[in-house]
Amino acid sequence: MSQSDSKLFPSDTQTKALASKLYELIADLPIISPHGHVDPELLAKNKPFGNPTELFILKDHYVTRLLHANGVELSDIYNNPEPRKVWHLFYKNYHVFNGTSSGYWFEDTLQKIFGISEIPSIENADRHYDLIASNLLEPAFLPKALAKQFKIEILATTDDPIDDLAFHRELAADTSFDTKVIPTFRPDKYLDPRNAGWNESVSKLLKSAGETSNSYDHYIRALENRRNYFKQHGAFSSDHGVFEPYTCILSSEDASIIYERALRNTATETQLRDFAGHMLTEMARMATVDGLVMTIHAGVIRNHHQATLKEFGPDTGHDLPVTCEWVQNLKPLLNAYGTHKNLKLILFSLDETNWSREIAPLAGFYPSVFIGAPWWFLDAPEAIQRFRSATVDIAGFYKGSGFIDDTRAFLSIPARHDLARRSDSAYLAKMITEGRITFEQALKISVDLVTTIPKKAFNL
Amino acid sequence: MSQSDSKLFPSDTQTKALASKLYELIADLPIISPHGHVDPELLAKNKPFGNPTELFILKDHYVTRLLHANGVELSDIYNNPEPRKVWHLFYKNYHVFNGTSSGYWFEDTLQKIFGISEIPSIENADRHYDLIASNLLEPAFLPKALAKQFKIEILATTDDPIDDLAFHRELAADTSFDTKVIPTFRPDKYLDPRNAGWNESVSKLLKSAGETSNSYDHYIRALENRRNYFKQHGAFSSDHGVFEPYTCILSSEDASIIYERALRNTATETQLRDFAGHMLTEMARMATVDGLVMTIHAGVIRNHHQATLKEFGPDTGHDLPVTCEWVQNLKPLLNAYGTHKNLKLILFSLDETNWSREIAPLAGFYPSVFIGAPWWFLDAPEAIQRFRSATVDIAGFYKGSGFIDDTRAFLSIPARHDLARRSDSAYLAKMITEGRITFEQALKISVDLVTTIPKKAFNL
Amino acid sequence: MSQSDSKLFPSDTQTKALASKLYELIADLPIISPHGHVDPELLAKNKPFGNPTELFILKDHYVTRLLHANGVELSDIYNNPEPRKVWHLFYKNYHVFNGTSSGYWFEDTLQKIFGISEIPSIENADRHYDLIASNLLEPAFLPKALAKQFKIEILATTDDPIDDLAFHRELAADTSFDTKVIPTFRPDKYLDPRNAGWNESVSKLLKSAGETSNSYDHYIRALENRRNYFKQHGAFSSDHGVFEPYTCILSSEDASIIYERALRNTATETQLRDFAGHMLTEMARMATVDGLVMTIHAGVIRNHHQATLKEFGPDTGHDLPVTCEWVQNLKPLLNAYGTHKNLKLILFSLDETNWSREIAPLAGFYPSVFIGAPWWFLDAPEAIQRFRSATVDIAGFYKGSGFIDDTRAFLSIPARHDLARRSDSAYLAKMITEGRITFEQALKISVDLVTTIPKKAFNL
Repeated sequence: MSQSDSKLFPSDTQTKALASKLYELIADLPIISPHGHVDPELLAKNKPFGNPTELFILKDHYVTRLLHANGVELSDIYNNPEPRKVWHLFYKNYHVFNGTSSGYWFEDTLQKIFGISEIPSIENADRHYDLIASNLLEPAFLPKALAKQFKIEILATTDDPIDDLAFHRELAADTSFDTKVIPTFRPDKYLDPRNAGWNESVSKLLKSAGETSNSYDHYIRALENRRNYFKQHGAFSSDHGVFEPYTCILSSEDASIIYERALRNTATETQLRDFAGHMLTEMARMATVDGLVMTIHAGVIRNHHQATLKEFGPDTGHDLPVTCEWVQNLKPLLNAYGTHKNLKLILFSLDETNWSREIAPLAGFYPSVFIGAPWWFLDAPEAIQRFRSATVDIAGFYKGSGFIDDTRAFLSIPARHDLARRSDSAYLAKMITEGRITFEQALKISVDLVTTIPKKAFNL
Repeated sequence: MSQSDSKLFPSDTQTKALASKLYELIADLPIISPHGHVDPELLAKNKPFGNPTELFILKDHYVTRLLHANGVELSDIYNNPEPRKVWHLFYKNYHVFNGTSSGYWFEDTLQKIFGISEIPSIENADRHYDLIASNLLEPAFLPKALAKQFKIEILATTDDPIDDLAFHRELAADTSFDTKVIPTFRPDKYLDPRNAGWNESVSKLLKSAGETSNSYDHYIRALENRRNYFKQHGAFSSDHGVFEPYTCILSSEDASIIYERALRNTATETQLRDFAGHMLTEMARMATVDGLVMTIHAGVIRNHHQATLKEFGPDTGHDLPVTCEWVQNLKPLLNAYGTHKNLKLILFSLDETNWSREIAPLAGFYPSVFIGAPWWFLDAPEAIQRFRSATVDIAGFYKGSGFIDDTRAFLSIPARHDLARRSDSAYLAKMITEGRITFEQALKISVDLVTTIPKKAFNL
Repeated sequence: MSQSDSKLFPSDTQTKALASKLYELIADLPIISPHGHVDPELLAKNKPFGNPTELFILKDHYVTRLLHANGVELSDIYNNPEPRKVWHLFYKNYHVFNGTSSGYWFEDTLQKIFGISEIPSIENADRHYDLIASNLLEPAFLPKALAKQFKIEILATTDDPIDDLAFHRELAADTSFDTKVIPTFRPDKYLDPRNAGWNESVSKLLKSAGETSNSYDHYIRALENRRNYFKQHGAFSSDHGVFEPYTCILSSEDASIIYERALRNTATETQLRDFAGHMLTEMARMATVDGLVMTIHAGVIRNHHQATLKEFGPDTGHDLPVTCEWVQNLKPLLNAYGTHKNLKLILFSLDETNWSREIAPLAGFYPSVFIGAPWWFLDAPEAIQRFRSATVDIAGFYKGSGFIDDTRAFLSIPARHDLARRSDSAYLAKMITEGRITFEQALKISVDLVTTIPKKAFNL
């Protein structure tokens, strides 16, 4: 086996061979991507990708953040009139990506999609740029063609509840396009009155649902209405990005009172927090009716650096993790709905201490709770090993979500799934040589991890 | 060496051989079990075990919780009139245990005790059930015979302070039975007024100690009295399961005031917490007199799911970990008694971040503090490696408790100790090949870990 | 390769060979020690070291704490009139150091500096003592000669802002001495009014800066003045040891009011905390002017055991870690100065959960933030692997501080740097065999880690 074929596999010869054997049997299986941030318009319009800089740098805040961290001005990236000059900055500083997941994905994408196996450096910057740019003009590099080449079976996007989902309808109507592109209901800005512009958001939500009055009852009905609209368009999950996964249950009367106060800006901080916690529980209640799987992504401070937010907008690399608590926060929700047959709740954290202390133990008791794959900063070779190490002892392999790429960067999807498949093959191989599972068991788990497991967690 | 002989050893040939060599020299040493939850009646009465379902499923909430998590109704387990059908549910869903410690222990027990080396599956469910059931009728499978076969030298049970310890006396009187079965003083429900039924518990405690009045002074005397009673029956430790290891010191006057208020339900939350924290410190004070080792198991929310508690009772799989803090919480206790010659304090946490940040540093200074072995959800091959990695650099091997099985499942005791011995052999072998210790040092540590180290920590 | 040459390298043959190859190329590179606690007088006076006990035990609280933890009385160490008897206590209990970093450093120092390769034991205690003692009288073992032998290029000490830095001047004037010995500005006791004797400290500070009045403005000016004094004497960093890295920004008016109240002991706890948080931000502001790098060491409770403090003083082994939070605490400071060209901020934590959750993500966005090397309890072979595992995926290798020995124990400097070099070689070798970086990339990183990386982080 060539060195590149054994990427991410353990160094021990026997274990490496086992990892390779497991990997070969899943390497080419279709990709299921039940949570991510690809723009549906990209696929619906099927227009050529922009230039290499737009594709690999401007749209990937994993890349811009690390360039910025190493001294490149964000204005030289985002406001640079010459994309090629930005590319030069990337290649000139490429050593700072050595060993990172961003570097891994980029090199893997260069190699698999563009046939480039040189390590990026200022010397080959122009050559790579030109080669990629010329490729992007070819029909084989149009988004739909790539989706087929990547064997993407299902691709979930993340969408505003008031979106009319026209692009999704367009894609569904294209019978020549095999990838199922599915919307995800992401209602954060409507659920938490502490979000900027909540009043206005709520007005739009009510309007989108055809409600003509504004009250708590109408608001709840509008959310139910839009969930159904999404469900009719193929959605199988709602996604919830929260600072803390706090939940509580208010009576309709109390919720209604806080709702009115929130609209008039007279609610206290505690009331607003309770309202947000109540609405997360309400999402679970609605899920027991409509069956949308809930994914919760918790423990992030968005927009840490105000000057960068002001100048370059959100998603520019300064969303940062904080400690996260699940067992106490989810207790009200789980006591109400945790054993309901219709509920599935997948928990994602950036605080890896949650894995063995909270998430695996919760998923090891509640039938509704599933362990979210390593997310964001933790979506990397060693973090994936730590994730398995922290969760498998406690909850096995069958209460996981399967791999989630969570990416805006369409071209990186195969690299990300491949990295996860390799990492899990490595982990399973190690378990075999340690006599903890047999090869046959490992093989079944390995295939299940990319087929039945995500399908079960996401009701696919 | 056969594959099964090298279970849990590193894959590298040289390291594996070293691990095996270390392991062989300790594999058959007697078992010291200084903390666990085996029912003393089981041994005293020496009656045959029930059916395989009762033995391996109903009494093991590690097993029932994961079945429940994967969609089996608890009523189909706990309320099922046909044990064989429950067994089928277990075997049908057995793949969910692949890679878990529960699966590891079960398979190891099947093999070592019943000679069954097939992986459980619905195909062999009846065959295994029948084989185990028929074995359980044999004299060799009676509890006392198994204790001898398992080479259990010392077995500590966990007991209510008002228990008359009749079964322990019976066992001590049986000169033909070599295992020392020892009670452990577990006073939680008497120490924390926030526990349900505290008033009534205290009344019983006072009565059991022959006290006829109810005051703080009598209460303290009753606790001292019952500790002595336990000590006279061989107890060497008291065990404390708390939500948080909060300690403080109240004057007798203040303690007395809160005690009276607690009895009349007029104490504040802060007062109740302080009283519980004061009583934990009081246990340390009493330990400096009577020499009972204190084990503290902290950081658990009991009975997370109220509906399950109501229907199926406690210990049904929904006790869940929370973050835990030791350095600040134990400061009052340790400032008062931390360097007292008579005190030993063993700290167990489900929050593995405590290991390198708090517990090993505390045990690396205070002569009284010992590092509790990986507990409950963390009592597993990889967690044990993480445990050693987090603590050895800081506090070495000689401030540990030795392995604790903490189990209600008598038949799993050899499997659990064997897992720990294999894991430590693997860890030590790795240290040898990395040149961090010599083989001779490793060998001494390896033997000490299952002999002198637990004996020292528990005053055996 | 001999066993001792492959210390800390992975056991797999191929990976071990790669680690060794990488290590050989950096093993003898000069030592850069940009943060530590060596006494400058030691070098300036160049007097022979004291006896072996003073050298290896009394001045190393890593050693005394673990002896104490294992039952040796501190009075038998610190108050023992016979150094040789203390040495006996150390050697008699040496097994408790097996596997610890203290043991590793000690054995490495014995071997490299004194040619002793036996494992310490009571049998060879006197022989080792005599051999070391006689060596210490030789000219080759004088501090300056050893600094040359150790190839220490730069050695930073840690100094009181009112220090006149006479020893540093003396050393700078010695043209025959090649090691640059540099002061570090450590102003904790002047910045946080909650420190004992703050009033008196502030008076001394004002005096040392030639200020004749006491007001907030004079206090600020005095700090600026002393920073400049240190900078003129070669200082390149200020060091900040805090319980929590809390920052905030007060107006001059508010800061002035709290300052006055603090002097009169009438400030509230909240005000005092805010003042300390404000002064940490002020240090960052001053750094944007004078360019001193800020190192923050956070998350320690000093002097946990009051009786030991009272009897034996501070730095006697009972400083203990607590959880630490950076993302929210540093937000005010980073919003004010986080992208300033002149600011560098290196974050050190004893809470290893900070690495992947907070410090690497912060360093992966803010150009000013660097990841502090594993510190204190975490400065050990396995902790270093965990550190790389937790940070490289996220922020690569180029946002680290380089290795910091942080030691008072001059003789242990080579052992500590060697341990770090070996550990990083092992880590890089593993990355190569896993196909995550090429040998050429690893080689460059390996050299950079001990040359350009610390030089960049510390403005050397």
